Amino acid sequence: MADMINIGVDLGGTTIKMALIDDSGRIIDKWAIPTNTIDNGSHITSDISTSINKKLSEFHLDKAEVRGIGMGAPGFIDMDSGFVYKAVNIGWENYALKEELQKSTGISAIIENDANAAALGEMWIGAGKGSKNMICVTIGTGVGGGIIVNGDILHGVSGMAGEIGHMTMVTKDGALCNCGKKGCLETVSSATGIRRLALEALDYNDSESILREIFEKKGDITAEDVFNCAGKQDPLSSAVAEKAAYYLGYALGAISIVINPEKIVIGGGVSHAGDVLLTPLIKYFKKYSLPRIFDACTIDIAKLSNDAGVIGAAWLAKTKLNRVHTA
Amino acid sequence: MADMINIGVDLGGTTIKMALIDDSGRIIDKWAIPTNTIDNGSHITSDISTSINKKLSEFHLDKAEVRGIGMGAPGFIDMDSGFVYKAVNIGWENYALKEELQKSTGISAIIENDANAAALGEMWIGAGKGSKNMICVTIGTGVGGGIIVNGDILHGVSGMAGEIGHMTMVTKDGALCNCGKKGCLETVSSATGIRRLALEALDYNDSESILREIFEKKGDITAEDVFNCAGKQDPLSSAVAEKAAYYLGYALGAISIVINPEKIVIGGGVSHAGDVLLTPLIKYFKKYSLPRIFDACTIDIAKLSNDAGVIGAAWLAKTKLNRVHTA
Repeated sequence: MADMINIGVDLGGTTIKMALIDDSGRIIDKWAIPTNTIDNGSHITSDISTSINKKLSEFHLDKAEVRGIGMGAPGFIDMDSGFVYKAVNIGWENYALKEELQKSTGISAIIENDANAAALGEMWIGAGKGSKNMICVTIGTGVGGGIIVNGDILHGVSGMAGEIGHMTMVTKDGALCNCGKKGCLETVSSATGIRRLALEALDYNDSESILREIFEKKGDITAEDVFNCAGKQDPLSSAVAEKAAYYLGYALGAISIVINPEKIVIGGGVSHAGDVLLTPLIKYFKKYSLPRIFDACTIDIAKLSNDAGVIGAAWLAKTKLNRVHTA
Repeated sequence: MADMINIGVDLGGTTIKMALIDDSGRIIDKWAIPTNTIDNGSHITSDISTSINKKLSEFHLDKAEVRGIGMGAPGFIDMDSGFVYKAVNIGWENYALKEELQKSTGISAIIENDANAAALGEMWIGAGKGSKNMICVTIGTGVGGGIIVNGDILHGVSGMAGEIGHMTMVTKDGALCNCGKKGCLETVSSATGIRRLALEALDYNDSESILREIFEKKGDITAEDVFNCAGKQDPLSSAVAEKAAYYLGYALGAISIVINPEKIVIGGGVSHAGDVLLTPLIKYFKKYSLPRIFDACTIDIAKLSNDAGVIGAAWLAKTKLNRVHTA
């Protein structure tokens, strides 16, 4: 059979990324439209459909040449039914996304959680290429996870597998997490958590610090500032970076004892910190895993950046769909 | 095709348990022979072969009626090759168990780690019956684990998945574990660990305690003593039981965030402690998992006791083997 086209869609709170992707993972074209969240996101599906139709005609592609649409969406999703239980940033609640998307496009669709779609993208042609057992951690505002086992996403019995940002890391006096628990990984190793740790350190401590100078100039600091200053051997910033890396390494050690992965891929904004983060992270990962587990695993920075989501979504279309749906 | 016979073998340090098991998991007959560890365990395979041949002729069974032998063995095993890298209690090192067993019996064989075989037994017809995503914890001298995902054992890239006894639970001043690390789950929640915690508590503390009376009478205590005394509201014993349950609940919470299981099965000697262990365990499991994960999961005590290993081994023969091997 001739190569077919897979469409990848990555729905975010502000933009919807889309791409035409061939069976080798190559992006033929990619584009984005704004996410229209008015009326509880009820225009989103038809916006996607209109945009895809326009693109297909631009490329003189018939729907018969499209295998299907893979779509990553935020929030809690039941992959079998393609149902979105709740996507706070989008406005959807109990929304039959797969059905609506198929109806409006006339193309078969498959829906996955956005963090899982990004993990699949990295597995297919990114930093995890060739790995069948993998942990993908995305460290941005929060800490997201995608666990790949035997070459596919692990969903678990109620679709919650891999929610590793909510593993409890600080059991005493942990900071409150958005999930309602205290001391989650997300509260200490996300960009938000690192900023909080740094603000606390500045508050507890009177030592001179180039991070303090930034704080006094800007009135605030970011995780990026912390890593930049740590890179310049600022002791206070280094201590904060080490702390964030400690919790992340400890969590990855524990997860690795459970699944024994061959690859850990770290993505998201914080992954750009480089060795300031990675060196202590690997030290603690080694300490809290086991020698046979540590030796079998490599840690890499994600490669696909913002394209991981559309590429992983396209992989789902390629792998899980095999016919054109006609409404 | 007519029902075939599966042979389950469970190799332990002192006895080898064996059973003839039908395709519904029913034990037709079970028996045991001593484990002969002299000459680095080099007689074990022929002992098993002799014993199986005797049993088959006793039951007037032809080898053509036997689907195969599933065998659980301690130590580190590569399931694909059936190779035992190291089994300390047995004396094997770099031993081609599957090949030797097939050669001496003339029957197809499949080899698995013993803790994993027990987990598969509980999944097939025990406390995990019908569950496809499951954590099996065996709490005895150590803490063993078997992780089942999508209806099969999770091995990971180097066969180390599910070594949950070695998750680090005590990060500060943890006790030394047999694995060389400090503060592993095994050091605080195994029978050995619970005894150690209780001895420390008796040492740090002068309070009256029925556990202390037992200690003064016997010169030692066991985990069973601790749970018995906790059941009689002995405060010191209750505090130790709570501590062991805390670490176990915390670990199970973390593991559940990774794999989102529908069932946790707790086996081994310590599982007989009953509510003195289970009540605090469930409390901490709830605290350290997430609501959607906690609600989707039930915790049960293992049902198959000492038969879990042979039953799980027979499941492997039934599921993974489909022809009679003739040497």
